[in-house]
Amino acid sequence: MKSEIIAVGSEMLTPWRQDTNSLYLTEKLNEIGVTVNFKTIVGDRRKDLVSAIRTALARTDILIVMGGLGPTEDDLTREAVAEALSIALRRDNDQLAALHTRAAAMRFSMPENNLKQADVLQGAAILPNANGSAPGQWLDVPFDGYRKLIMLLPGPPSECKPLFDSACLPRLRAIVPVRHIAKRTLRAAMIAESQADKLLAPIYAPYKDVETTILAHGGDIQLTLVCSKANAAQAQQRVDELAGRMEEALEDWLYSSGGESSDSLEQIVLYYLGLRQATLAVAESCTGGMVAQRVTAVPGSSRSFLGGAVVYSDQLKTAFASVPPALIAQHGAVSAQVAEALASGIRFRTGATLGLGITGIAGPAGGTESKPVGLVYIAVSDAQKTESIEKTFRGSRERVRQFASQQALDLVRRRLM
Amino acid sequence: MKSEIIAVGSEMLTPWRQDTNSLYLTEKLNEIGVTVNFKTIVGDRRKDLVSAIRTALARTDILIVMGGLGPTEDDLTREAVAEALSIALRRDNDQLAALHTRAAAMRFSMPENNLKQADVLQGAAILPNANGSAPGQWLDVPFDGYRKLIMLLPGPPSECKPLFDSACLPRLRAIVPVRHIAKRTLRAAMIAESQADKLLAPIYAPYKDVETTILAHGGDIQLTLVCSKANAAQAQQRVDELAGRMEEALEDWLYSSGGESSDSLEQIVLYYLGLRQATLAVAESCTGGMVAQRVTAVPGSSRSFLGGAVVYSDQLKTAFASVPPALIAQHGAVSAQVAEALASGIRFRTGATLGLGITGIAGPAGGTESKPVGLVYIAVSDAQKTESIEKTFRGSRERVRQFASQQALDLVRRRLM
Repeated sequence: MKSEIIAVGSEMLTPWRQDTNSLYLTEKLNEIGVTVNFKTIVGDRRKDLVSAIRTALARTDILIVMGGLGPTEDDLTREAVAEALSIALRRDNDQLAALHTRAAAMRFSMPENNLKQADVLQGAAILPNANGSAPGQWLDVPFDGYRKLIMLLPGPPSECKPLFDSACLPRLRAIVPVRHIAKRTLRAAMIAESQADKLLAPIYAPYKDVETTILAHGGDIQLTLVCSKANAAQAQQRVDELAGRMEEALEDWLYSSGGESSDSLEQIVLYYLGLRQATLAVAESCTGGMVAQRVTAVPGSSRSFLGGAVVYSDQLKTAFASVPPALIAQHGAVSAQVAEALASGIRFRTGATLGLGITGIAGPAGGTESKPVGLVYIAVSDAQKTESIEKTFRGSRERVRQFASQQALDLVRRRLM
Repeated sequence: MKSEIIAVGSEMLTPWRQDTNSLYLTEKLNEIGVTVNFKTIVGDRRKDLVSAIRTALARTDILIVMGGLGPTEDDLTREAVAEALSIALRRDNDQLAALHTRAAAMRFSMPENNLKQADVLQGAAILPNANGSAPGQWLDVPFDGYRKLIMLLPGPPSECKPLFDSACLPRLRAIVPVRHIAKRTLRAAMIAESQADKLLAPIYAPYKDVETTILAHGGDIQLTLVCSKANAAQAQQRVDELAGRMEEALEDWLYSSGGESSDSLEQIVLYYLGLRQATLAVAESCTGGMVAQRVTAVPGSSRSFLGGAVVYSDQLKTAFASVPPALIAQHGAVSAQVAEALASGIRFRTGATLGLGITGIAGPAGGTESKPVGLVYIAVSDAQKTESIEKTFRGSRERVRQFASQQALDLVRRRLM
């Protein structure tokens, strides 16, 4: 079955705010085999709303309208749907009572205008909203001779998502023909999107029944494989077969190939550290704490991550990671030698099993002909050896730092494997 | 004048990818006084595309269609616009030659299918694309008796945005009635969005001609004031007057009130550090490098930011920030005393003018009845004094860390003022 989503609100037609509810709803709809064919963003103007609703109803089975259910003059979704379908609104007594109870509990004197939140489309089921004052509505009506399912949901994500899950999904499941969805996510580090696609396209192209999506960001590639079939085992078999072939092709770029969801590179590094009963400490210059921040974003990271130093100045490279000033003077702060000294120094100073050292030129200024912006040295040190790599990343300061932190984590992963 | 944006591409109807070009285009359109009244996201299906284009043309003056201009079978925007307008496509010889030259330069043997990128709508101006193979197109045509401006732009942001700026904006400026836009951005830290709105709504509400937008994220509030008038000085005067009244109301929550754009809290802290010829070093526990990472994201931060330590383990609190083990044993690692010892210790160890110490429980585990998840102590130390504050932030690990880093930077800002 086909669906459309209309997001209502003038703020989503500004440069600053975007509809994000629809991503969540799309995932849930796809999971029951419903595709989303159009998304429309429309402002708080009744004429525009009616036009968008009529256009959508003419071409879809399922219509979800989000937003515009609040108490203000700008909230016009109820009125617009009523006009588009030529049906009446009735003021619901139970909803009125609920609004009064809510206002009393919050010691809030309710303006007359608020009462419109009790208006219900003739024939609609009320979807009680546990997280806000405006209920959702569910309508199952004929339109131009076809059956249409219409859902009205509040705009705030904290209300929209739970209400869709609790009230709309069960109703949809009872109507939409059953489809089983199998899903796998693979993740790889430090392979370019174009390279990954060149490598993988010949593999996934023949799997017409599996939808493969490649997302790339900051040196991280996420491959999502989705297959929808009437038979659950068949869907799973197709996804697993394709995932297996892709895993083989990706070799050691692949770092995660779990089930439905997948672990981040930080999580994988922490997993291997735990497995080896090893600890990690970092000495970061150009990434300025980004690696530490990424690792510590994972709950429980304190078991394997000791911490480290952000050694932005040369003095701190010596004070916190015991880098000899003479080494910096001889090779420069951005050099393989200093990266290795940072890695072994921080390991020694913290007692960690592994030390990671990063030094580079994030830009936009500070580059020279021999050491351009984007040049980064990354070193990993353990009891056996200290080794470094040299990379040059293109792009903005943010991009260089993102790629350097990703490369650093990947280097630790490879050392642990 | 009214505009609509259609973003073409099935990937934007998945749960994973979203149109972002339209935010940029909206900002540029608003600046010349053009409003965006609808945004539509449509997949790579010709029928759907034609439907979306016809619907849009029936209600708008300006239509921008982004995406679907590439060489593959899925790229159908040219064909769909031709069908919707009932005009022909012609294969352009100059464009054909350009495609062949480009392929030769990239040593790429061009499939027959690629040639469709040379197809141009009858009567359209070709907009040369410096960053990709498919050119944009500009069409100024009557539709149902009204004049319509139609722009076809490539989907990749790196092609779409520059092409819109270089080719579409100048053409639009010559047609759209001149409106002058004045804009101001104010930023405030650690005031809740609801509190800010309660404080400011009575102030901005009477300024019906100034559009005020409040965006809140992670303890940061951004207020954008936009006024569009035929007279530039009048627009500026209205925005400045409202900004002045809001600045007064925000008192010292306000940290930035520049002109069109505004500085981040990190930039403001670095600005004051530079002004005072002061330096900063940080010792972070629960934020795990987030403060250092935010500060070093600003180009040139090395002038005032020395670096610091991520002291996740108790041992490192002692090793890098000289926190006495007895102090940790007595008060616990999460305590005002340890935060203050971290701040003064890191200041002493690095020789910085200011030391910042942060310790807390980011969660989701690790909380106790007396020290719940979200409890954070933040201390700032300088030559005169060392002082700490206690805060409890609600929400996820990510949110607690985000708010703690914001609060920490704000505390440094207040000390510097």
